[in-house]
Amino acid sequence: CHRPASQRPAAASGAMKAARIALRSAAPLAGASSGSSRGSRLPQEVETFSRFSPSPLSIKQLLDFGSTNGCERTSFAFLRQELPVRFANILKEIDLLPDKLLSTPSVQLVKSWYIQSLMELVEFHQKSPDDQKVLHDFIDTLIRVRNRHHDVVPTMAQGVIEYKDTFKVDPVTNQNIQYFLDRFYMSRISTRMLMNQHALLFDDNASSGHPRHIGSIDPCCDVVEVVNDAFESSKMLCDQYYLTSPELKLTQVNGKFPGKPINIVYVPSHLFHMLFELFKNSMRATVEFQENSPSLSPVEVTVVLGHEDLAIKISDRGGGVPVRKIEQLFSYMYSTAPRPRMDDARQTPLAGFGYGLPISRLYAKYFQGDLNLYSICGYGTDAVIYLKALSTDSVEKLPVFNKSAYKHYQATSEADDWCVPSKDPKNLSRQSAAL
Amino acid sequence: CHRPASQRPAAASGAMKAARIALRSAAPLAGASSGSSRGSRLPQEVETFSRFSPSPLSIKQLLDFGSTNGCERTSFAFLRQELPVRFANILKEIDLLPDKLLSTPSVQLVKSWYIQSLMELVEFHQKSPDDQKVLHDFIDTLIRVRNRHHDVVPTMAQGVIEYKDTFKVDPVTNQNIQYFLDRFYMSRISTRMLMNQHALLFDDNASSGHPRHIGSIDPCCDVVEVVNDAFESSKMLCDQYYLTSPELKLTQVNGKFPGKPINIVYVPSHLFHMLFELFKNSMRATVEFQENSPSLSPVEVTVVLGHEDLAIKISDRGGGVPVRKIEQLFSYMYSTAPRPRMDDARQTPLAGFGYGLPISRLYAKYFQGDLNLYSICGYGTDAVIYLKALSTDSVEKLPVFNKSAYKHYQATSEADDWCVPSKDPKNLSRQSAAL
Repeated sequence: CHRPASQRPAAASGAMKAARIALRSAAPLAGASSGSSRGSRLPQEVETFSRFSPSPLSIKQLLDFGSTNGCERTSFAFLRQELPVRFANILKEIDLLPDKLLSTPSVQLVKSWYIQSLMELVEFHQKSPDDQKVLHDFIDTLIRVRNRHHDVVPTMAQGVIEYKDTFKVDPVTNQNIQYFLDRFYMSRISTRMLMNQHALLFDDNASSGHPRHIGSIDPCCDVVEVVNDAFESSKMLCDQYYLTSPELKLTQVNGKFPGKPINIVYVPSHLFHMLFELFKNSMRATVEFQENSPSLSPVEVTVVLGHEDLAIKISDRGGGVPVRKIEQLFSYMYSTAPRPRMDDARQTPLAGFGYGLPISRLYAKYFQGDLNLYSICGYGTDAVIYLKALSTDSVEKLPVFNKSAYKHYQATSEADDWCVPSKDPKNLSRQSAAL
Repeated sequence: CHRPASQRPAAASGAMKAARIALRSAAPLAGASSGSSRGSRLPQEVETFSRFSPSPLSIKQLLDFGSTNGCERTSFAFLRQELPVRFANILKEIDLLPDKLLSTPSVQLVKSWYIQSLMELVEFHQKSPDDQKVLHDFIDTLIRVRNRHHDVVPTMAQGVIEYKDTFKVDPVTNQNIQYFLDRFYMSRISTRMLMNQHALLFDDNASSGHPRHIGSIDPCCDVVEVVNDAFESSKMLCDQYYLTSPELKLTQVNGKFPGKPINIVYVPSHLFHMLFELFKNSMRATVEFQENSPSLSPVEVTVVLGHEDLAIKISDRGGGVPVRKIEQLFSYMYSTAPRPRMDDARQTPLAGFGYGLPISRLYAKYFQGDLNLYSICGYGTDAVIYLKALSTDSVEKLPVFNKSAYKHYQATSEADDWCVPSKDPKNLSRQSAAL
């Protein structure tokens, strides 16, 4: 990552050494409990680990941890450093949120979880990876951390709701919250991924899943199979709710190996999440827009494997949305936020337009892909998921706390550098009257 | 426009009064000739008029100038103020370009044209609109200005080439140049539009064009007719060069008045420009990608009129481009620049990938529309032109010189706020070695 050289550790071993020195010289631990207000400083450990940049892994590197050459000790040594670094980097950004948001009970709770988890993980810096008990305890800690963070998304969303209910939502605030939440949720996707991989690979009690899978990664993910699964799951919900549903019309083009099935190295659960979200939206739009038609237009899916990208295009004839509203579909502020401990899928089938789209886009971006919507108002919507075709290109996209990031939280409302047409257009006749 | 209140004239009449005062109190005119270096100040008139924000007109207001109630005096009074304002606003940005670019002979030449034209127009502030000779002279001046500025695009492009050849093109420079040229060329589209309208409406010698047209605006522009025209023109070039060309497969959906032809208030020459550019690209891609096929896939065009947007989607099966390269297609820096006084269309048919795409996008944005490309590598490309369906929403999009704009030219290279994966990925085994 780009960092001032003085702050960028030369190598991982240097990083760990610095961390150990920092730990030894650290002042007695500051309180990691909840309820600390903005005035209170973050614990020294957070400051220390926030000075390291996260180290993005390629999906290939994640696979290597689980290969026959992979080693629990290597993974342990990496994670006890990397997880605190990622937690600390995002904690610094949480701490820059507007006071009125930061001081909500929900955000304070989330912050306390992150500090607590960071502290628990940092303790393993003093323990030997050669001790089986240590490795075992580490897995327990990872699982405990993962469970603690289970409701991070709805809890943070709750904080935003409280903030939104009290203050006016202006475009600048919306943009700042969007900036933070995209980074915050991306950070969470990444730390969950790392913790899951370690737990799945090295916990003997973990359910093994598909034998082909390496942790949550499928080295030979059959894209069309996931498309069909997600479509069927969405169709079931749609049939339940609307008593009808559109058909799937699938086209696949393997540009690399013509005629062969399309496989990539990927996390099938991430792909399913994105596709399920898009199919729910497409089906709902189609059924509602075509309610007076004798039959429903199919949802058309085109899967293409190119030399660089894997693209999945989902086209519906659901009437689309005006281009002006596309951005709002990805906005956390303008969306219905998820509520904690609720099974959304059952309670509000095909609800859509919650955090589904922005989070799906983060999943796509996590491994350097993207997710875009192109809608034609009065006709329908095309959604395209882009993923990297090569596992070496699929590298984690991670937020890093640095000066550039810091500046974003200082941004205030500024004049637009393009003219903003007034509601009340210029009265030209007044000019001639003045002559 | 957003401006500090002290700089924003309350009304047009106030603006003109201020301008008259400024003129009276102005120091003897500074040299408006070419060759002035950065050190030399812009003439006082430029400073004065740059303090006004441009006044965006809706396409409906532009029509009103040409209606039976329209009046040459009103148009004259508006333009003698508004054109200097637009020239002065963009001159302030030209003056903020990097020294090495600003000092190229090409950019100095362009700058001198703008200053010269501004001075010539400002002279009309001292003349009476009730004098027919004045109105006549004004039209002559507009035509002279328009001719003077004929080669602005290739001349400015030449400056960028010289700059690019001498200095390394880094992403930050590319971004800054992109920022400037998008604003500069947009400003030019707008001033040409204003000058053309006045000349077409009030010059008795001007060729009248289609009787339905108001200047260059067609109040009842048949979108499908322009699509067919642009397709045929592109097809002719394609046939000439490749001896074959794809067919057109057109779908139209009128969501406002089902079954009726699709009409909007628009400038047909702008629409033709965009469509011709996109068709050339689609045809070339299709013919080259499918050169071994017995027949060519058609270029599919979908025209949809919704309640807010008019959308024209152009889909080809020309093999697409990697998602990574889409942005480059719109980049002035990475494109082949147009050369002055060359008939591109004849010399290099279907050349594409020059300034064609970025300028076409500016035409779309000029009246609050947009132009996007969605490509699937290994398959094909969708291009979508969005225009406003309502003439009241079609308001000029104009750059304004203010603090926000100023800041863009001060931007220096800054660290990315997302981790940049290194070419040489983290060696994880070194961590275990360090244990």
